Amino acid sequence: MATLKVTQHSVDSRLPVAITTGEPAGIGPELVLMLAANGELPPASVAVGDPAMLSVRAAALGLEVTLVPCQPGDPLPDGDGVLPVWPVALRAPCAPGTLNPANADYVIETLTVAVEACRAGHAAAMTTAPLHKGVIIDGGHTGFTGHTEWLRDACGVDEVVMMLATDDALHATRAGFDGSSDLRVALATTHLPLREVADAITAERITRIARILDADLRDQFGIAAPRIAVCGLNPHAGEDGHLGREEIDIIIPTLAALRAEGRDIRGPYPADTLFTPRHLVDVDAVLAMYHDQGLAVLKYAGFGSAANITLGLPLVRTSVDHGTALDLAGKGLASPASLGVAIALARRLADQRAA
Amino acid sequence: MATLKVTQHSVDSRLPVAITTGEPAGIGPELVLMLAANGELPPASVAVGDPAMLSVRAAALGLEVTLVPCQPGDPLPDGDGVLPVWPVALRAPCAPGTLNPANADYVIETLTVAVEACRAGHAAAMTTAPLHKGVIIDGGHTGFTGHTEWLRDACGVDEVVMMLATDDALHATRAGFDGSSDLRVALATTHLPLREVADAITAERITRIARILDADLRDQFGIAAPRIAVCGLNPHAGEDGHLGREEIDIIIPTLAALRAEGRDIRGPYPADTLFTPRHLVDVDAVLAMYHDQGLAVLKYAGFGSAANITLGLPLVRTSVDHGTALDLAGKGLASPASLGVAIALARRLADQRAA
Repeated sequence: MATLKVTQHSVDSRLPVAITTGEPAGIGPELVLMLAANGELPPASVAVGDPAMLSVRAAALGLEVTLVPCQPGDPLPDGDGVLPVWPVALRAPCAPGTLNPANADYVIETLTVAVEACRAGHAAAMTTAPLHKGVIIDGGHTGFTGHTEWLRDACGVDEVVMMLATDDALHATRAGFDGSSDLRVALATTHLPLREVADAITAERITRIARILDADLRDQFGIAAPRIAVCGLNPHAGEDGHLGREEIDIIIPTLAALRAEGRDIRGPYPADTLFTPRHLVDVDAVLAMYHDQGLAVLKYAGFGSAANITLGLPLVRTSVDHGTALDLAGKGLASPASLGVAIALARRLADQRAA
Repeated sequence: MATLKVTQHSVDSRLPVAITTGEPAGIGPELVLMLAANGELPPASVAVGDPAMLSVRAAALGLEVTLVPCQPGDPLPDGDGVLPVWPVALRAPCAPGTLNPANADYVIETLTVAVEACRAGHAAAMTTAPLHKGVIIDGGHTGFTGHTEWLRDACGVDEVVMMLATDDALHATRAGFDGSSDLRVALATTHLPLREVADAITAERITRIARILDADLRDQFGIAAPRIAVCGLNPHAGEDGHLGREEIDIIIPTLAALRAEGRDIRGPYPADTLFTPRHLVDVDAVLAMYHDQGLAVLKYAGFGSAANITLGLPLVRTSVDHGTALDLAGKGLASPASLGVAIALARRLADQRAA
């Protein structure tokens, strides 16, 4: 059964990846516990969350985990089944599957702890388990639109880029998309109502996003000359203006200007034919114009083994590719595969950045 | 080399599938010729197009095809390498890869011939090779928005539904999505600029589309109780209204009303997680709200072996899942696989309807 100890264990001298355990009523806490109990948690990982809640959740699921509370900057305990925890206290009791806006501040505090640890040199990277945007808003954070946007503001940068990558791509510096399921998809817009997407596609936004994507494929992924394929906004990429003019008026000239900066940025291509072997074979990442245009195919290709990477931040941040799955919470039925991929990717990107 | 004969061959007594050869500067003509030359054209198929153009194209590619001009209602010649042709005359000379608006009327006439043959009982079904919407519009058909919409108007129905299906699904009456690549995806809106999509999602439209989809899965595909999963319009299906209200205001109540009619219609689900095994395992078709939401993943899953089916027409119509590929035209490099799937599907649906 789960135990809660402060005994000293062996120590991993590397800076940890800080894993925020996310919405406490969702599957995040148990996914971290499952990885720890299964011996699948990469070394030098630390959970951020309420130790008592994690202990109760582990006990309820019969997971053999030794939770070890410690503070950022402390030596990191290590060992079989050991899960170091940077403690953040729940604001209200929490039952799996039942959202409580009173815990919105708790969820936000776990993020703050992880960001501060990265900034202070106490963490190498952060990986986030899913939160529930609706309950964060209901809990008083009315401007909250998502993890990614919150991190942008917390880090004081103007723009970040949400990119998802399937497992195969994580293990190669140049994926080449030669497998059946290795994809990297970045988004020009993220969590916007569909009716607001077209107006959000501006030359300025595409330029900022493409420059960040290009830079971080070089810096974080080690790709010397990234090849980026860009989707059109409209069906058939506007079909010469017959199905919308944003390609002609905005996207095509913007991509030409980016190419003139020496970047290998191609398109715009019709989204419904871009995700095919003929187009992907020599591309390192796809830039989709909006959420469902890029992520439906990405998650079809690699659901459960894909991870989300936030580009453009002064720190390394990855996350899972799924939501809180409230209907599965507390049952031990959800797969920790995506969280495992996200943590492993954070480790790899952090080590590459440190090298 | 290609020959152009009027010699009588053996006769297939079944009504033919009429194959419109599409944009003459595109790959459509050569795809039909390749199927005929390779012995891959299903029996009782007839091409609709310019026999001289087809003959020249076959000769240029070294395809051994015997073109046999005949008229709708004539006995259908049959035999190895025989391609019966219902003649329609080009309006202007045509070189592969070079669009000419002067041939827009030609392309439209091939469609008219096929529709009239279906109506007159001279064809069992029609399959369309790709046309180029832009050049049809430039050729004076200013209101033209696509094959599917043209057929709707030509057949005098109020609404049709565009559905794409991958190969595996074509060969089972209840696909079950248990393979890795069998999908059926229908669209609530088709060839609209993205900025017009949200306003086009009305209760009336969803109701009409879902009823047609449900009815034709029963009538054309022989599925006794179709199970339909519906995508939300917004990212995360609106996330309880935080990312758009169309789900709450329109989609959710409309689906409830459709369920009250006794239909198995589920959702709305977030599009980026709907296309995963957990959701698709017991579903017969997905209804996406717009083009790129549904078709990027469909074509990723089954590019080159998917076919387009128009539901809601008084005739059977299938088509390829790709465009005119002007850059490949005249080179013999394009794959006729999707056209072959589309013709085979038309045959199967027509035989099922006749049975």
